[in-house]
Amino acid sequence: MADLGAAGATRRRRRATFAAGRGGSLVPMNGASAAACPSAGTAGHSGDTPGQKHGSPETARTRESLLSSESGYNNYRGILNWCVVMLILSNARLFLENLLRHGILVDPIQVVSLFLKDPYSWPAACMVIVSNIFIMVALYTERQLSKGSFSEPVGLTIHCINLTVILTFPVAVVLTVPSVTPVGGAFALGIYTIVLLKLYSYRDVNMWCRDLSRAKAKNCPAPSPVSVLLLHRTSKVCYPGNLTIKDMYYFAFAPTLCYELNFPRSPKIRMGFLLRRLVEMLFFTQLLVALTQQWMIPIIQSSMKPLEDMDLSRMMERLLRLAVPNHLLWLMFFYWFFHSSLNFSAELLRFGDRQFYNDWWNAETVTYFWQNWNIPVHKWCLRHFYKPLLRRGFSKIVSQSAVFFLSAFFHEYLVSIPLRMFRLWAFMGMMAQLPLAWFVGNFLHGNYGNAAVWISLIVGQPFAVLMYVHDYYVLPGEAYIVH
Amino acid sequence: MADLGAAGATRRRRRATFAAGRGGSLVPMNGASAAACPSAGTAGHSGDTPGQKHGSPETARTRESLLSSESGYNNYRGILNWCVVMLILSNARLFLENLLRHGILVDPIQVVSLFLKDPYSWPAACMVIVSNIFIMVALYTERQLSKGSFSEPVGLTIHCINLTVILTFPVAVVLTVPSVTPVGGAFALGIYTIVLLKLYSYRDVNMWCRDLSRAKAKNCPAPSPVSVLLLHRTSKVCYPGNLTIKDMYYFAFAPTLCYELNFPRSPKIRMGFLLRRLVEMLFFTQLLVALTQQWMIPIIQSSMKPLEDMDLSRMMERLLRLAVPNHLLWLMFFYWFFHSSLNFSAELLRFGDRQFYNDWWNAETVTYFWQNWNIPVHKWCLRHFYKPLLRRGFSKIVSQSAVFFLSAFFHEYLVSIPLRMFRLWAFMGMMAQLPLAWFVGNFLHGNYGNAAVWISLIVGQPFAVLMYVHDYYVLPGEAYIVH
Repeated sequence: MADLGAAGATRRRRRATFAAGRGGSLVPMNGASAAACPSAGTAGHSGDTPGQKHGSPETARTRESLLSSESGYNNYRGILNWCVVMLILSNARLFLENLLRHGILVDPIQVVSLFLKDPYSWPAACMVIVSNIFIMVALYTERQLSKGSFSEPVGLTIHCINLTVILTFPVAVVLTVPSVTPVGGAFALGIYTIVLLKLYSYRDVNMWCRDLSRAKAKNCPAPSPVSVLLLHRTSKVCYPGNLTIKDMYYFAFAPTLCYELNFPRSPKIRMGFLLRRLVEMLFFTQLLVALTQQWMIPIIQSSMKPLEDMDLSRMMERLLRLAVPNHLLWLMFFYWFFHSSLNFSAELLRFGDRQFYNDWWNAETVTYFWQNWNIPVHKWCLRHFYKPLLRRGFSKIVSQSAVFFLSAFFHEYLVSIPLRMFRLWAFMGMMAQLPLAWFVGNFLHGNYGNAAVWISLIVGQPFAVLMYVHDYYVLPGEAYIVH
Repeated sequence: MADLGAAGATRRRRRATFAAGRGGSLVPMNGASAAACPSAGTAGHSGDTPGQKHGSPETARTRESLLSSESGYNNYRGILNWCVVMLILSNARLFLENLLRHGILVDPIQVVSLFLKDPYSWPAACMVIVSNIFIMVALYTERQLSKGSFSEPVGLTIHCINLTVILTFPVAVVLTVPSVTPVGGAFALGIYTIVLLKLYSYRDVNMWCRDLSRAKAKNCPAPSPVSVLLLHRTSKVCYPGNLTIKDMYYFAFAPTLCYELNFPRSPKIRMGFLLRRLVEMLFFTQLLVALTQQWMIPIIQSSMKPLEDMDLSRMMERLLRLAVPNHLLWLMFFYWFFHSSLNFSAELLRFGDRQFYNDWWNAETVTYFWQNWNIPVHKWCLRHFYKPLLRRGFSKIVSQSAVFFLSAFFHEYLVSIPLRMFRLWAFMGMMAQLPLAWFVGNFLHGNYGNAAVWISLIVGQPFAVLMYVHDYYVLPGEAYIVH
């Protein structure tokens, strides 16, 4: 109840009004003189000096409470710290409760079994090695095209067949080889999807270069001496000089999906930077595995019963309970993949363009989030899908919906095939972004829009996770299509 | 995985660097020309216009990831929204879990039983009515002193006896009358403590006024005509004109502990303001009771077992589990009492000084918090305890510690007597603020200091609550002193 009239209080005082109200000298306000009494006025103004016999009889004056709207006060800086402290304490409590209830569930050996069913059969690794064939086919086709050995229609046909096989071959393997685990299958499919997008970009850029050099040849037949000089000074690679195995594999390993003849390069490998990213990668890998085993899996297991019973209020509770670890894991995954891993490979390859993500955490619209959280894919979509559609005369809204449709297709592709069941939850989750984007863009602005984006991330993902878990475990008879 | 190249993307784009990196026109950077190839340079710069046959072969340029320290980026505005969303969702989950586990526990009738054991015996209400006697004794003594019927030593003796009885009479009643409930006892003791502080201030100020008028009389014997004119114009009350029953009861009901002859008054009662505060008072009363019954009590009950077993890790878990509702209830209590209730009574009495609290939520030191969260008590301590001690020649550090000691005494007084057990947890909790204030003031600054203040509030209170609950329920044989 009681407070402290402390030494040095005035020093820490920030609000001049309060400081003025404390001492003996008062400013008259609201027309009321601050003097206690006309007969005692002068003495009352003498202030408090040590040794004075008495205090000042009057110290109050008219003012509003800070939280009244009339006060005009709005400094709630401390509330941010409050939020952080409350979040940390709440999660510390959850962590302790989890440990007390389940003991330590972390088991690094178990992770290996997610990738391998049979230690003598490595189907996912074999598939990744096989993908080199498709890369070589694309390079060979481009070489023949540059020499004129293949005509453009022949080249297009070979590329189309190559890309179709890249898309369908891993599907066939995952669905027919029993030793492929869901995690191993998802990994292989992810690699194949990346190769697909990269080779599509490779074909597009080389075709544009042929178009450009043909147009150039028509306008001015020979390169000017100045441009040849520039060529040598900056050691730029020029089409068809880029069609080498070294260039192809640099692109295959580079952390980008958009091919360029001359990638921006950083001057040297910074060893300190490389080491920090490596430590982050190892640390977050461990943390992701540990938190999944200790936190996610017990919640998912305890959700089976409510899911079977279709107990809606309990399902809701499990959904919200799952939302926190799922979201934290997603944030860690984001940092692990988009910051640590991609920067690590970029540093190793002296790849200059490190814009793997943008400030999506400030996104006030769903569109801004999707444009900024995964820049490599966003750039690919913009350059090789959205803009070509616009050039072919499609309207913006159609092209935009087509991008979401493509994205939804790949989301479903990467989830359904490894799980060997086709439920369309991921597809619908992505397609639901379109009406959500429309709603948030039109009705919510500023911080409300930002909060809506966060809510859709925090609640939407565990919803899809629970849906797949339900279908994978609760409906095993229906869910397993192949075996 | 996939992102959207949306219509109007550039409009929403905030970072000029990114916008520059997207289009076809590129600024040369890091000495590397952005032209794809010397032979294709001009065409590559033509930008993307619909109808153009090909895309731009080069779009990347050297830049750092936003989260790298090298990028110099620091806009994490969205994180605040993230904190708010996470807090709301976490607590929604807790609320749902609580409802599913316990059902609805809210019972407004039960509240009455906290105040009344026997419906024909209202000891707390009787004690509050009796307190009028002490107020009248103080007024009578001051009147006799002003007339000179009592000498100063006689007046001081009567005041001392009066204040001592105010302090001890309710203790005797609570400890001897069995029908006083802990809540009723705490309420009565709170009222008596307020009366004690008010009458102490009343005596001090009237004594200062006598000193001032004596000093005045020595210097200039009669009031000048000008000051008499001022007296009539502003209708200021002058000592001993303030020694009336009306003035005394205005002070008794006014939301302040520091007596003044002429309180600042607001011009009129704003009915809208009064009504809003009244609605808030009623709403928060209901909410406080409901949350205590639904949220606090189940946690406290489930803490009994770990407390009996002295199971440290489970006690820690219960402590953190209790911290969230306890803290939210304390925040609501703060708003209910210091904003709604005190502003309501101030508006009703046209009391002008509404500074009942300051911006303690931004406190970066423990001292600043104690100086600003409870301004009425802080002002009283400053005016009637800290400054008089300084005037008597005590050092600042001694006076400061004395204020904390007084505060600790009243904390213990208001908790121990109603619970009828003397454990010194509240006393030690207050005294622990002294080393805490020293530590935070010397070692933590800015946001860290603010976070430390929040942690001490969030964790410190439930610790004391659990201690008293433990002693009250777990050790009933020892704890009940009287019956």
